[in-house]
Parts: sequence; structure tokens; C-alpha cells
Amino acid sequence: MEIKEQISLMAKTAKEMAPAIATAKTDVKNKALKKIAQGLKDQLASLLEANAKDVAYAQEKGLSKAMIDRLTLTEDRVEGMINNLYEVIALPDPVGNITKMWLRPNGLKVGRMRIPLGVIGMIYEARPDATIEAAALCLKAGNVVILRGGSEAINSNIILGNIMTAALVKAGLPEKAIQVVPITDRDAVLALLEMEEYIDLIIPRGGEGLIRFVTEHAKMPVLKHYKGVCHVYVDDKADLEKAKKICFNAKVQRPGVCNAMETLLVHEGIAEKFLPDMLKTFSQAGVEIRGCPKTCNLFPSAKAATEEDWPAEYLDLILAVKIVADMEEAINHIAKYGSNHTEAIVTENYSRAWEFLEKVDASVVLVNASTRFNDGNQLGLGSEIGISTSKLHAYGPMSLEELTTTKFIVFGEGQIRT
Amino acid sequence: MEIKEQISLMAKTAKEMAPAIATAKTDVKNKALKKIAQGLKDQLASLLEANAKDVAYAQEKGLSKAMIDRLTLTEDRVEGMINNLYEVIALPDPVGNITKMWLRPNGLKVGRMRIPLGVIGMIYEARPDATIEAAALCLKAGNVVILRGGSEAINSNIILGNIMTAALVKAGLPEKAIQVVPITDRDAVLALLEMEEYIDLIIPRGGEGLIRFVTEHAKMPVLKHYKGVCHVYVDDKADLEKAKKICFNAKVQRPGVCNAMETLLVHEGIAEKFLPDMLKTFSQAGVEIRGCPKTCNLFPSAKAATEEDWPAEYLDLILAVKIVADMEEAINHIAKYGSNHTEAIVTENYSRAWEFLEKVDASVVLVNASTRFNDGNQLGLGSEIGISTSKLHAYGPMSLEELTTTKFIVFGEGQIRT
Repeated sequence: MEIKEQISLMAKTAKEMAPAIATAKTDVKNKALKKIAQGLKDQLASLLEANAKDVAYAQEKGLSKAMIDRLTLTEDRVEGMINNLYEVIALPDPVGNITKMWLRPNGLKVGRMRIPLGVIGMIYEARPDATIEAAALCLKAGNVVILRGGSEAINSNIILGNIMTAALVKAGLPEKAIQVVPITDRDAVLALLEMEEYIDLIIPRGGEGLIRFVTEHAKMPVLKHYKGVCHVYVDDKADLEKAKKICFNAKVQRPGVCNAMETLLVHEGIAEKFLPDMLKTFSQAGVEIRGCPKTCNLFPSAKAATEEDWPAEYLDLILAVKIVADMEEAINHIAKYGSNHTEAIVTENYSRAWEFLEKVDASVVLVNASTRFNDGNQLGLGSEIGISTSKLHAYGPMSLEELTTTKFIVFGEGQIRT
Repeated sequence: MEIKEQISLMAKTAKEMAPAIATAKTDVKNKALKKIAQGLKDQLASLLEANAKDVAYAQEKGLSKAMIDRLTLTEDRVEGMINNLYEVIALPDPVGNITKMWLRPNGLKVGRMRIPLGVIGMIYEARPDATIEAAALCLKAGNVVILRGGSEAINSNIILGNIMTAALVKAGLPEKAIQVVPITDRDAVLALLEMEEYIDLIIPRGGEGLIRFVTEHAKMPVLKHYKGVCHVYVDDKADLEKAKKICFNAKVQRPGVCNAMETLLVHEGIAEKFLPDMLKTFSQAGVEIRGCPKTCNLFPSAKAATEEDWPAEYLDLILAVKIVADMEEAINHIAKYGSNHTEAIVTENYSRAWEFLEKVDASVVLVNASTRFNDGNQLGLGSEIGISTSKLHAYGPMSLEELTTTKFIVFGEGQIRT
């Protein structure tokens, strides 16, 4: 069968399975999730074996150390996947909730009922744990899912797919409700992106290149973020102790992730007092500083920042630093160079806190807290399937509720329109 | 300037205006809406004159009577546009509402604040009143809008654009917050659909051909419905008096709209009792009946339905009729041939009412009420910008809230992630 035909068949089957999953009761979906957890335990050996093949091939191909690390499964990581499944089981099921209900003058009772989106296509890169995470959230929210992981993880993903298929059957659900695309050819991605008739939403996760490719070619809506160019603005009314802790955490705790700080903006009124000590601490932690001219004056070991540094997502121990005249300049800088992902202000001033919150357009805006909190678990939503900077129903971390929509339900007693 | 350059400049300008409109206070936005209403009054003569040019040209080109009717403005219709503006002014402003707020174990206070989507592109056909309706809703919800109406209405739309621009300035808002595309060439639409960097959402309204074209080419999310193939299912437990009133209203009150009934499904248990009288009433109202074999047996003057009739959106006094063995067959028929738009059941049976509501996947599902209620005003949302069968945050009629999303806001006291 040709790739396009094969993908089309998968997508059509997915659509056909959607009603059964959409109306499955919570306890049946939870049973399937438990059976997946059980399957991961039972088949640990063959999963690690398949993963070892992927890793060996990745080493042969000379993939980066970071890539190979993300690809590698260990007993601990599988344990983590199992724990994640139990977290999803514990989350309340959003499907069927009637979020509002009101009475019309003609006696019609109108409500909004939460329903699954339908069929979700996930397109992602190396991490095989994402295969389980994404499938678990989609299933719990009543959606059918088609998973297209990176070609590097194909052996791992096929085993994971088999474990999930068996679990669905054990729970009495259709096995095709979760499908792993077994084709590593990029044409399989292209074919998926054409299936507007069958797939309701595409969620890509990975590097900017992958995401731009998906957005360029998808005929259906895409929820995604390209990158996280996150700022912390330290106001002249900031508590500098808090500022130091927050900035250090935002940059250093895990520099390779999308919610890490990439640029530090500092009000000129406290720059002299705050920056030398702060930048020294950063330097000692191995952070390379790229500063505006004023910053370089205050901290001579900084490199001079160029125009390319302001929109850069380093994902590394590098930090751009700019001294600004006031909050307005900070907000304008963020509007120009930010990526609508995560933005924070450190200030003790009430009016500035609110002004920053209201004016800055980002999926998460924080006052006096680290940018690292842009995360489903950290914000209290539970496990997440990714972070959206697309402005649709999901702007920010996407957990169960973001994988649903609502339909209108109307109870009448024979009303007609006049 | 080339078309693409010109459109790119419009879109870039729109994006630049977005923060000013997003943070405009409700009373300023309402002032602009009032000034638009005033402008329509003051410039009635020149508006009708420009519209007469459009109508004359449409007649020359031999457009259909229905098209010309939709294109034509009269004093009454302008009065309707003004009333619509006052309805939008009266609607509560969703922007800035904090819809939820919760406390995390570490003391972070996390909330979701309603914010505008940003820049919305409207692509629509002949009706010039849509120009005002769409712009008013987008503005009230804090969005910048680019309007690309049908080429037939270009003279009317340019005047309407000028009226709106002047009103924005009078209210102290940037005049480019509402822009009418002055180019009738279809390349202008194509260029708009490429502007993913500047336009957050496209809403197309019009015939299926236009909407498929937009979906095919848009790089950004599209909220739309292709067509409304709406069903009424009359259950054997129905109150037949209610059923007759509802079916007649759903088909005949306004057959040319997307929420009119196109197919009637009748439980075989009451077909003999219900259908002959019902179909006679339809025939007397000029409705052509296309029935399944059983229907034709009961009502010999019906034409035999073919396979093409079941997915057909007639938008006319034609009705497909099918007798089904039970509700399950009705639900399956709707799943196969429906368009996720509007579906109704008539029944007095409690369990069937709920089963139909839960199982049928449509933007509005009704019990004992006419399909004609799928409409923003009728459901109590206020004025609407269209009906979405895309499954995103908006599934059903789209009013102010559907033109917004939420961002997360976080209040901390120095929290860092550990």
C-alpha cells in the first residue's frame, strides 16, 4: 500500500472510532489507562530491548548526546511513565460536564456541554515517553489519537503502541482508538496533515523547524509554540532578594527548556545596585552574559550583545541582558522580541504589577515568580500535552480541558422560531 | 505596490495596532461603536449611492436575484445595521474578566484572564451589512480586524470602511484597527491567508466553495462551517403535535439558511400515523418531498430519494424523508450524513432525549425545539459573527466570548521552581 493510502486508512479508522471513545464512561477509560500501566510493567524487558535498538542506531547515525539522552528509556523512566499514567487517572474527566445553563425568555433551557475534540494528531520528536503521555491525555479527554513520533524512536514507539492497543481491548474499547504511525518516511507526516476530513487538530512538539513544517502544510488547526523567548523584567521597585532568586531559577535550574529565561531586562534605576552581583552569580554558575552597552559597562566581562541576541532562544547557559529606562521600554521590548510564551515581572509596586499583567501578551504572565512555572503540573492543571502560543481555546499549557470543546444543548417543550 | 506587498503592509499594521485595541477600555470601544452608528446615519445618502453602483454592476454581470437581494442596502437595512450596533454596545465586554482563580500549595495564585485573540481576518461574500456586524463584534472583543468582503460589494464596503475609520479616530482609537481590503482580486485573499505571522484567526463566511478555498490555503487557524445538513428525528415516543409544529418551522420558516432542516427522520412506529398528514402539510406549503421507499409507499406523490439526497444541503423548499427502525439508526444516519451543525430530536421519552443529546456530535443539539434556534441571538449569546463547526473553543454560534481566549496570570511572592 502507498504511504498516502495507508495514512488515509488510519485517519478514516480513527474518525470511525471517535464516537465510541467520546461516549466511553470515565471508569472504562481509566481501566484502559491502568492496563497500559500494567502492560509497561509486564513488557519492560522487550520495551528496553527495542529501545536499545533505537539508541544503537542513533549512535551509529551520530545524533547529539542530548538527543540520545532524550531517546533512551531506563527502568526509572518507564517507572516515571507509569506514575504519569496514574496522575492522568486521578484527574477529573471533563467530558459531559455542563459548564453553564441558562433560561431563555421563550422557556428554552440552553447549556454548554463539554465534549471531546474528536481525532487528534500528535507529531513529535525523539522522546518515547511522550508517546504514552500524549495518548493518555487524549484518551482520558475522550479523543482518538494518531501518534507520529520521531523516526529515531520507531522501535520503542511500535512496542508502546502494541501495549496500548492491548490495553484498550482489555478495557473493552476499540483497539484503533490509539494508533502509532509505523512509517518513518516524512511523507507520512505530509499525508497526515492533508487529512482535514478526519483529523480535528494537530499538536506538533519539537524543534522550530518541525513546527514550521507542520504549520505550513496542515489543513486543520494546529496548536503549537515555535519557541520560548522568555523575559524577566526587574523593576526599580523590586525586592532585589526575590529578584535574584527568581532570575537565577529562571535561567539556571533547567536551561534547555522552553520556559527558561533567555533575556533579563533591568530598570536603570537599580541596575548598578542589582546587576554586578547578579551577573557575577550567573558567571559563577557558568552562564555566558551578552549585554547591552550599559550592561557591559557595569560588568566588563560580559560579551557585547548583537541584534541577533534579543530574539534568540538559547536553550543553554547563555543570557542576554538589557538595561531599560522604564517598564514601558521593557513591555515594548517583550512585544518586539518575545514569543508570547512566558513573561515575568519582579516588583513590589501594585500598579506596575497589574499594568504588566494586563499589557503583556503571553500565554503565562507572572508577578514575582519564576518563568519555570509555565507548566501544566506547576499551575495545577495536571499533566499536560504541550504549551500553546496559538491563540485559540488553549493559550498556555494544555491539559485535559484544552483537549475538549463544548457543544450547545437545548431543552425545549415544542418551541419554534417566529 | 503589488497586491502581496499591500496586503502584507495591512496585516503588519493590524498586528501593530493590536495592543492598543486589546487594552482599550469598554467605554472607549462603545464610543467608537456609537460613532459608527452616527456615521451610518450621517452618510446614508452616499452609502446608498455607492451601493446602487454595486447593484447596477451586479445586474449587468447577471448575478442571481438572491445574490442581488443580499447585496442591496435600503434605509431599513441600514437602520437594522444601526440597531445591531446598539445590541453589541449593550453586550458585556468579556475582556479582562478573570474567569477562574486558584491557590497552589506553594502559595502561587493562578488565574485565567480573558484576552482578545489579536488580529482577525474576515473573508465573506456579498452582504455589506456583514461588514459592520463583524467589525463591531471584533472591536468590542478587543480585536483588530481585516475585512475582505465580496468583490460585488466593493463600493459599499469602502464607504463603510471610511465611516468606521472616522469613528475610531473620534473615539481616540487607531484608525487602522478596522481595515477594509480595497482589492477585489482573489490574489488578495490568497495573500491574506499567508499572513500567519500577523493574523491570528480567519473566519470565512459564504458558500462551500469559498470556505474550502480558505481552509485549503490558510496557514493560520480557520473557524468555519462548510454547510448545514440539519436533521429532525421524530421518535415514536414524540408528541406528534409538537413534532408537526417543529418540523414545519424547521423546514419552511426560512428554507435558505444553514440551520433549516434538510432531512426528516421518522421512527417507523409512528410513520403511518405521522407522515401522511405532515407531508401533505409540507406539499401544500410548496415543499418537494424526496422519500425513502417506505416514505413513498405512505405518500405516493413523493419523489424517490437517491443516495445524493442524504448529504444534500438544499437551502430550498425540498425535503429528504427517511423512515428509520429506531433511534440508533437515526443517530447513525446523522453521523454519516450530517455536518455537525444542528440536530434535533422530538420525543417525550426521558432516556432517549439524553441519549440523543449525548451521542449526537453537532454544534447545537436540541430536544423538542426547532433547528432554527442555532443562532447567537436565539441562544442568548447576543449578536454573532458566524457559526463554527470547527472543533475549537468555538463550536456553534460565535459571539463576543468566542472572539477571545484566556491567558494565565500568576501572582507570587518570590516563588521559584525546585
